[in-house]
Amino acid sequence: MSKKKSRYAPTLNDVARESGVSAITVSRCFRHPEKVSDAVRKRVMETVEKLGYVPNSAASALASRRTDVIGLLLPSLNNNVYLDVVSGAFDRAHGTRHAIQIGNHKYSPLEEEKLIRIFLQQNPAGLIVAGGEQTEAATEMLREADCRVVQIMDTDVDPIDLVIGLDHERAAGEAVAGLLARGYERIGFLGARMDTRSQKRLAGYRRVIGDSGGEERIATSPMPSSARLGAQLLADLFARYPDTDAVFTNNDDIALGAYLECQRRAIRMPEDFGIVGFNDMDLLEELNPSLSTVRTDRYRMGHDSVDRLIALADTARPEGAAVLDLGHACMWRGTTREA
Amino acid sequence: MSKKKSRYAPTLNDVARESGVSAITVSRCFRHPEKVSDAVRKRVMETVEKLGYVPNSAASALASRRTDVIGLLLPSLNNNVYLDVVSGAFDRAHGTRHAIQIGNHKYSPLEEEKLIRIFLQQNPAGLIVAGGEQTEAATEMLREADCRVVQIMDTDVDPIDLVIGLDHERAAGEAVAGLLARGYERIGFLGARMDTRSQKRLAGYRRVIGDSGGEERIATSPMPSSARLGAQLLADLFARYPDTDAVFTNNDDIALGAYLECQRRAIRMPEDFGIVGFNDMDLLEELNPSLSTVRTDRYRMGHDSVDRLIALADTARPEGAAVLDLGHACMWRGTTREA
Repeated sequence: MSKKKSRYAPTLNDVARESGVSAITVSRCFRHPEKVSDAVRKRVMETVEKLGYVPNSAASALASRRTDVIGLLLPSLNNNVYLDVVSGAFDRAHGTRHAIQIGNHKYSPLEEEKLIRIFLQQNPAGLIVAGGEQTEAATEMLREADCRVVQIMDTDVDPIDLVIGLDHERAAGEAVAGLLARGYERIGFLGARMDTRSQKRLAGYRRVIGDSGGEERIATSPMPSSARLGAQLLADLFARYPDTDAVFTNNDDIALGAYLECQRRAIRMPEDFGIVGFNDMDLLEELNPSLSTVRTDRYRMGHDSVDRLIALADTARPEGAAVLDLGHACMWRGTTREA
Repeated sequence: MSKKKSRYAPTLNDVARESGVSAITVSRCFRHPEKVSDAVRKRVMETVEKLGYVPNSAASALASRRTDVIGLLLPSLNNNVYLDVVSGAFDRAHGTRHAIQIGNHKYSPLEEEKLIRIFLQQNPAGLIVAGGEQTEAATEMLREADCRVVQIMDTDVDPIDLVIGLDHERAAGEAVAGLLARGYERIGFLGARMDTRSQKRLAGYRRVIGDSGGEERIATSPMPSSARLGAQLLADLFARYPDTDAVFTNNDDIALGAYLECQRRAIRMPEDFGIVGFNDMDLLEELNPSLSTVRTDRYRMGHDSVDRLIALADTARPEGAAVLDLGHACMWRGTTREA
C-alpha cells in the first residue's frame, strides 16, 4: 500500500460520522450484522461503498495498537487445575514477545466482568477466559473486543472466537458408567464448591445413575475443595447410605480424602469399595493402591490457547467460531476392580 | 503548592543538565551517595542548592505517573509453594484498585532480568521478586526503580527496600536437630531441583550433621520436584546407605514420595524410619501416619508484600531497608518419634 493511499484511507470513524452512527455500530455491522437493524445496516453499508472503506485495514490499524499482553482470567489460583492451565500458558509464551497477565475473579461473575473491562482497556493481544458463564455485559464486551478471545475448560458454551475444553458432563457420565461396568452397584457422588463444572459432573452422574435405575446418593459442600473435606463428605455419605460401595468425586482432592478415610476405616479397595477422582493430578499413580481418575488436559488448554492467540494476534477477526474438544480419558487404576 | 511554583519548580533533569551529569546520577546522589564519587556528588549538591531543587517533589511527580499494577516475579508456577504466594497476593489485592501481574522466570536469572526491565517500563505501583540472586544489572534496576521493591522467600539477602521471608538454613538445621533429638542417628537428605533455597536447606542439614559428628548422606537431583522423584531419591539413598534411619527432604513432594516408598517396602514409620518434609502443604496431616514437616508461611509472604506495597505506593522512597522474618515451625507428626 502506498504511503499516500494509507494516509487518505477512510477510517471506521469516517464511516460512522458520515452514516450518523457510532463507531461500535459500524463495527457491529461487520461482525454481528444480526444485531443491527436493517435500516441502519443499509445506511452504513452504502457509506462504506461510497467512501471505499476497507474494514481489514481498520482491523490491522487496531491490531497495531495492541500490546503484547495476553490476559488469562481464571476463577481460582488455589488449586492444581488452574495452576496447570497457568503453567501451560506461561510455557508457550516463554521466549516470545508475548507476556501473560493473570486475573483471578474467585468464581464471581461481577468481579470477572470488572477484570474483563480493565484488561480490554489495556489493549491486550488476546484474552483467555474460563467457561461461558460471564455476565451479559461481559459477554458483550468480549464479542466487541478488538482482540481474539479463547474460552477454556468447557466445550458446551456459546462460543465467541475459539473454545478449548472438554465435555464435563460426558466425562463424568463415562466414569460412573465405568464403575457400573466394574460391578459396583450403589454409587455415590462427592462434590465440593459446586461451581459450574462441578454441576456438569453431577449432571453426568445423575444421568447415568438414572438410566441404570439406581438411587442417587449425593454429598456436596459449598466449601473449597480439600482432602479433609473429601474425608468428611465420605463420612456424611456413609452416615446416610451405609451400604454405598463406590464414589465418583468431582475432583482428585476429594477423591484423596475419601481414599484416606477408607484406609482409616480399613475398607478394602478395590474389593469392597471403588473410588474414581477427576483431573488426574500427579500424586495419584504413586499411591498404594493407585487412585483411579478421569484425566483432563488443563496444561494443553493453557498452552494451546496462548498458541492460538499468538498465531492469530495480528490477523483480522474471522467470522464464526471454532470449538476444540481436548477430550478426556478414564484412568482405571488400583481403587477400582477390573472390568 | 501554587500553580506557578509547581510550573517553575526545578526538576531532576534541570539539576542533571546544569551539573553536566545524567538524571540517574542525580537520583543516585540522593539514594546511594556511596556509589557516586565525591567530586560528582559535590557538584550535584551545589547545583541542587543553587536551583532550589526539592527531591521529594520529583519523587511524588514520578509517583503520580505510576499504574496500579503490582508486579510479582516468581521462579516457578508449577508448585504449591509459589501458588500459595500468588494466592496471598491476589487475596490482599482483591477489592482494591491494585491489580497483580505475574511473571515467571523459571529459575533463570537472565529471564528474570528481562522481566524486571519489562515490568519497570510499565511504571508499576510496586514490584515483588523472589530472593536476592538477581543479576547485577537487575539489582541495579531494582535499586534505581521508581517504585518500592519487596524481596520475598529468604531473609539472608542484600535488602533493597523490604525483605519478607524466612531463614531456610536455620529452619532446615532445626528440623535435622529435631530428628537427632528424637533418637534417629543416620539421617539422610533428599533434594530436587536444588535451587538457591534448596541449597540453603542442604547447608542447614550439613551444619547440624557436621556438628553432631555424623556422616553426610545426600541424594539430590536437578529434576523438578515430584512424589515420584522422592521415591526414586530414597531408593538411591538406600542403595548407597542401607542403614539410613531418617530423612530430611527439601520439600513435601519429595517427603511424600519417600513416605510412599517406605509404605511399599513395609518400613515402619516412625519406629524404624523418620521423615520430615518442608513447607507443610495441606495433605500431610491427613495421611496415616501424618507427615512431619517444617511449616512456612508462603501465603503471608504474598499477602504482606502486597499489603506493604499498597500502603507505601504513594509515599517517597525512604532511606534504608527493612527485613521481616516470618519464621517457621517444625510440625512433629506421625512420621517421627516423640522427642
